[in-house]
Amino acid sequence: MGFDFEEIDAIINARSMAIVGASAKPVKFGSLFTATQLTFGFKGPVWLVNPGEKEILGRPVYPDLGSLPEVPDLVYLTIPAHRSMDTLRDCARLGVKGVIIMAAGFREAGAEGAALEGEAMRLAREGGFRIVGPNCFGIYNPRNRLALLPGHDFSQTPGDVAYISQSGGFSVHVGRQCKGLGIDFSAIVSYGNGADINEIDLLRYFAADPQTSIIAAYLEGTSDGRRFAEALGEAASRKAVVVWKVGKSESSSRAVTSHTGSLAGSARIWEGLLRQCGAIEVSGVDETCDVLLALKHLGRRPGRRLFLVGGGGGLGTYAADLAEEEGLEVPTLRADTASRLRAVLTAPGASVGNPMDIGTPLVPIPVFEAAMDEASCDPGTDILVFDLALNFGYGLGGEEGLDAAADVLIRVRRKSGKPVVLVLYSRAIGPEDLRFEEILRRLRTRLLQDGVMVYPSMQRAMRALALVNA
Amino acid sequence: MGFDFEEIDAIINARSMAIVGASAKPVKFGSLFTATQLTFGFKGPVWLVNPGEKEILGRPVYPDLGSLPEVPDLVYLTIPAHRSMDTLRDCARLGVKGVIIMAAGFREAGAEGAALEGEAMRLAREGGFRIVGPNCFGIYNPRNRLALLPGHDFSQTPGDVAYISQSGGFSVHVGRQCKGLGIDFSAIVSYGNGADINEIDLLRYFAADPQTSIIAAYLEGTSDGRRFAEALGEAASRKAVVVWKVGKSESSSRAVTSHTGSLAGSARIWEGLLRQCGAIEVSGVDETCDVLLALKHLGRRPGRRLFLVGGGGGLGTYAADLAEEEGLEVPTLRADTASRLRAVLTAPGASVGNPMDIGTPLVPIPVFEAAMDEASCDPGTDILVFDLALNFGYGLGGEEGLDAAADVLIRVRRKSGKPVVLVLYSRAIGPEDLRFEEILRRLRTRLLQDGVMVYPSMQRAMRALALVNA
Repeated sequence: MGFDFEEIDAIINARSMAIVGASAKPVKFGSLFTATQLTFGFKGPVWLVNPGEKEILGRPVYPDLGSLPEVPDLVYLTIPAHRSMDTLRDCARLGVKGVIIMAAGFREAGAEGAALEGEAMRLAREGGFRIVGPNCFGIYNPRNRLALLPGHDFSQTPGDVAYISQSGGFSVHVGRQCKGLGIDFSAIVSYGNGADINEIDLLRYFAADPQTSIIAAYLEGTSDGRRFAEALGEAASRKAVVVWKVGKSESSSRAVTSHTGSLAGSARIWEGLLRQCGAIEVSGVDETCDVLLALKHLGRRPGRRLFLVGGGGGLGTYAADLAEEEGLEVPTLRADTASRLRAVLTAPGASVGNPMDIGTPLVPIPVFEAAMDEASCDPGTDILVFDLALNFGYGLGGEEGLDAAADVLIRVRRKSGKPVVLVLYSRAIGPEDLRFEEILRRLRTRLLQDGVMVYPSMQRAMRALALVNA
Repeated sequence: MGFDFEEIDAIINARSMAIVGASAKPVKFGSLFTATQLTFGFKGPVWLVNPGEKEILGRPVYPDLGSLPEVPDLVYLTIPAHRSMDTLRDCARLGVKGVIIMAAGFREAGAEGAALEGEAMRLAREGGFRIVGPNCFGIYNPRNRLALLPGHDFSQTPGDVAYISQSGGFSVHVGRQCKGLGIDFSAIVSYGNGADINEIDLLRYFAADPQTSIIAAYLEGTSDGRRFAEALGEAASRKAVVVWKVGKSESSSRAVTSHTGSLAGSARIWEGLLRQCGAIEVSGVDETCDVLLALKHLGRRPGRRLFLVGGGGGLGTYAADLAEEEGLEVPTLRADTASRLRAVLTAPGASVGNPMDIGTPLVPIPVFEAAMDEASCDPGTDILVFDLALNFGYGLGGEEGLDAAADVLIRVRRKSGKPVVLVLYSRAIGPEDLRFEEILRRLRTRLLQDGVMVYPSMQRAMRALALVNA
């Protein structure tokens, strides 16, 4: 029905809502979403609707939308496709602003479903409301505390990243993983089939939304290639745009049709379009989150020249292989930087250069700090990358040594202003080694809060740095 | 000094040893290795040697090798390079069989170090002993309980994988990560500069070793291209061989020279050589371990035709993209398989096909089992791949549901005989979400024990399956 900022905004920033099909039965999505939204604490009234229930989690349940004390901005439908039309007629009659239709069984399911989707659209046009979905989860917005997806423990802190996704599952995966990385959202919208509000409308909305400065998307296809290209180009000229496009192979195109009824289109055309518009093309949830982390800390095109440092010669050698494979640069050190570093790193096994081996992982913390200070001042490199395997222990040993090493990196980042990337991981992956994971997560959270980027592998770090430089 | 099976075997399967430079001072490698080896419980006498100590961890310390009650098979040197020659003279005089030289500061450090390395080799030839190193960690062998690397908690179960590595760090990373994957070793040898026993000798040794059926290696270069190619070709004709070769870029070649004094050689020549010999080329510790896991469970060339299943349409679509990118196949389902699956998966949102969407992650366990049973019987596919994100909960919910799902996969694997790969992960990576990691590790250990392969991401699973099929 075309793009209208106010209409979409009235849904994403809804001030009242009703959940139709609210339930207390434990194994239904209706109950999962009801509990999630009630736990998350929507900033406005949430009315529960279900003719078969009287009370859910201590709240009254209304038999239908007409019985509510007010007309809600937003109606969330968790009932099956074939039973949705009566409620949509109520929505049209009452004048709600938006409806999210969660159920599958519409266009993606064949002719009968397509007829239902057509009828839903007819009612929306007639009643003047907009639809998100069908075949989706819904919306997460920390500002009004919408959480219409499995995310009762999502961050309550508003941020500047918008994520739009045809997959409900991936919208939750990205939201969940970003929470652990300290990346906050303006909103996440899982829009499924995109029968009404689609990828084009959402791109235009978030390009205009003043809360949003980074837009990321999971796409299976688009309803209109030309209009999508226009919207993408405009969005990418104003904000960083990250796109994960699936359906590039023969078997995955088949899957796209049966998942959201989209047409996947040619892989080559998509790649060209994304590159031409200046969008960053990614693949997978991990890579999406990795790039969002780099954009948050570095922005777009922070420079390709890396100073690679590790405690062990193999680490740096491998890192240099990966960096150059990804089109990043590992320049030879300037003579003055090298001679200052040689004055600090005197133990056998240490090797001054780029990549640089600080010697054993048992290097004393003051030596480590002096070396990282010198390294961060090198004017020939843009980003300092340090590799730290947790299963060795560090510095004077154990957790204290690790904390001291983290403090050094935070100080170096602050003093020099140079971006610092820590590749932090543990190879101790057995059930008896959970302590390492606990330390790792604690350190990562602290480092991220203090401006040091943390990646779980050199491969993922190099890829993310290459992508934001693309 | 050439290849001799018995000489190398006398070191790897040593029956007595001395640690020269044994120490109780906490921040030295000498103390780390002493404590590691004493904790690991070598099956034979371990004599500690250090003129400056009287007792370490309740054991007597001898002033020099000549004072020991017997001549040890193996001498482990943890003293600095320039102080090693007197001890090596003792080794020559006494007639030990092998010496591991840990210290850096030899060939890789320049002319002075190269002279020391030459002198060490002269003493070895004169005394008839063999050298591992210098500039290495040493050897792990669960059969005689050698643990001359930071691995006091390495597996004590002997296995059939040999790992040889020029990097001490990576030898420990691979050992540690494989422990968590249930992969056991015949031995791990970190050989550093490879002044005497080198990659060629070790390839030939493990090719002949009856305990070893898989050989993996981390290489920075080789001392003799022609002899290496011969040894590799022979090893790969008898056993699965996995090689990670670094130093492929300009900056990493520089690093190789300063790390182990090797010459990295042309990337293209190495790639051609590995392919021609039938070795599997990998990159990184993760990929090395991922391929070792696939080799353990599937062997070489288990078939490329995958049946991809997930709870959610996006998962399967992405998996199909990855599979075809890697040269794997996602064939259309046979009509009979498809019709049997359609009788089982009746809920809206489910979609029968390949990739297959079993619907929501909340599918009831009996439906899940029936679907996986049918899927495993499909004669048109070689391997069944299932994607399971832990942060959703599963089945009837929570940990019980997850255990039930794992039981289903184990039963399906056992009944059908078809290889089952589970992609198991959690996006809940914050410090407050450690419970998910705990459940994940417990499930992974159980599944691996019962023959279900587990990978942490679809990308890594697809890559490993492609590599063992290469």
